[in-house]
Amino acid sequence: MCDSCGCHVNDQADKKTIDVHQSLLAANDAQAAKNKAHIEAMGAVAINMISSPGSGKTTLLEHTLDRVGNRWKIGVIEGDIETERDAERIRKKGVPVVQLTTGGACHLDAPLVHKGLHALEHQSKTGKFDLIFIENVGNLVCPATFALGEHERLILVSVPEGSDKPAKYPTTFHGADTFMITKTDLLPYFDFSVAEAEQEALRLNPELRILKTGAPTGLGMDDWLNYLDALITD
Amino acid sequence: MCDSCGCHVNDQADKKTIDVHQSLLAANDAQAAKNKAHIEAMGAVAINMISSPGSGKTTLLEHTLDRVGNRWKIGVIEGDIETERDAERIRKKGVPVVQLTTGGACHLDAPLVHKGLHALEHQSKTGKFDLIFIENVGNLVCPATFALGEHERLILVSVPEGSDKPAKYPTTFHGADTFMITKTDLLPYFDFSVAEAEQEALRLNPELRILKTGAPTGLGMDDWLNYLDALITD
Repeated sequence: MCDSCGCHVNDQADKKTIDVHQSLLAANDAQAAKNKAHIEAMGAVAINMISSPGSGKTTLLEHTLDRVGNRWKIGVIEGDIETERDAERIRKKGVPVVQLTTGGACHLDAPLVHKGLHALEHQSKTGKFDLIFIENVGNLVCPATFALGEHERLILVSVPEGSDKPAKYPTTFHGADTFMITKTDLLPYFDFSVAEAEQEALRLNPELRILKTGAPTGLGMDDWLNYLDALITD
Repeated sequence: MCDSCGCHVNDQADKKTIDVHQSLLAANDAQAAKNKAHIEAMGAVAINMISSPGSGKTTLLEHTLDRVGNRWKIGVIEGDIETERDAERIRKKGVPVVQLTTGGACHLDAPLVHKGLHALEHQSKTGKFDLIFIENVGNLVCPATFALGEHERLILVSVPEGSDKPAKYPTTFHGADTFMITKTDLLPYFDFSVAEAEQEALRLNPELRILKTGAPTGLGMDDWLNYLDALITD
């Protein structure tokens, strides 16, 4: 009890809140399992890309599409709170792209991505793809709780954000398959320790694969394309 | 209805979810009003700092504390999902600081900040402050929904994140008082349009005050200190 303002933390809402959230997450997980079957029926594997705003997800995709050319059939689902900007950037590369806007929500969820899969199919004559990128809303926290039906979950942290980010956002790293450090061409100009970021990420999740890219300069892009190749071929 | 996976969006949970969220937000707003009275009883004004991870909130505070010296009595409440790292950085500057860890949650809320205010009081002989900085969890979306009892809400976007961020995160800007572009010393090296960021931010919120800082080089720090001075004096 607080003498100054006469209040205390209200614990009564907690049980009800926890129940509703668990029910929502269970519904989301069920839809995610269906999305995964849907994606596989499209012939594809899907990557759920999660990062802070401005970590370079769209830039990585632009440079990836330039390098891949016609080698694989790629579709992109863009998640944002508002605006079609990221989809417009990807559309210029000539691949099927769907913009999902959450209208305020801080993450994509499986039902919304399900709509995106259908919209993507309509942009392709065959409805078939090799690889689907799902670029989540820029947020290093909430998207980690919502499975979308992806085969791989990729967490990106850019060099300007700092190498303390894995330690500070542990939940996100627990559920990830791959951790990519982006904008590595900027390493000479920032106080970012690759060793610290890698060690902290592996401490949280020893199974994590680690990639490093500086997409505009081509740094690490061969490793990234080899990783995609293995994912598609497996 | 989806032929491929036989599912459709489950709308049944929505009403219940909306009810619980509205009840949570109402409880949070009530506690935030009490926090504000609490902060004023401590003699202080409070600033709620909201940004993506790695936008430079802690760095701005470090340089601010160096410049302010003993001019004002400052307290800092640090919000993170895990780790005491930010509080350790601020503690080196010799001011009262409290680390709040949310244990997974993507934002600070008013009940947690209330505990932080009490902890801050215990670190001061008089319990009095001029200015309290509340550094929210690194997240450009969710913290905007939760009032903490602050007098000013400051949104920070760093140059490496890109000038499209106001347009892509409109809700955050609607509720802000001040928008700060950080890491402006990096403008020569990034494709960041100050004009675009300012115009989009002002389109969303014409009352917004705009500041620009490059804290380590001192850029814009006089404007920032004048802003703090006006806030404390008012």
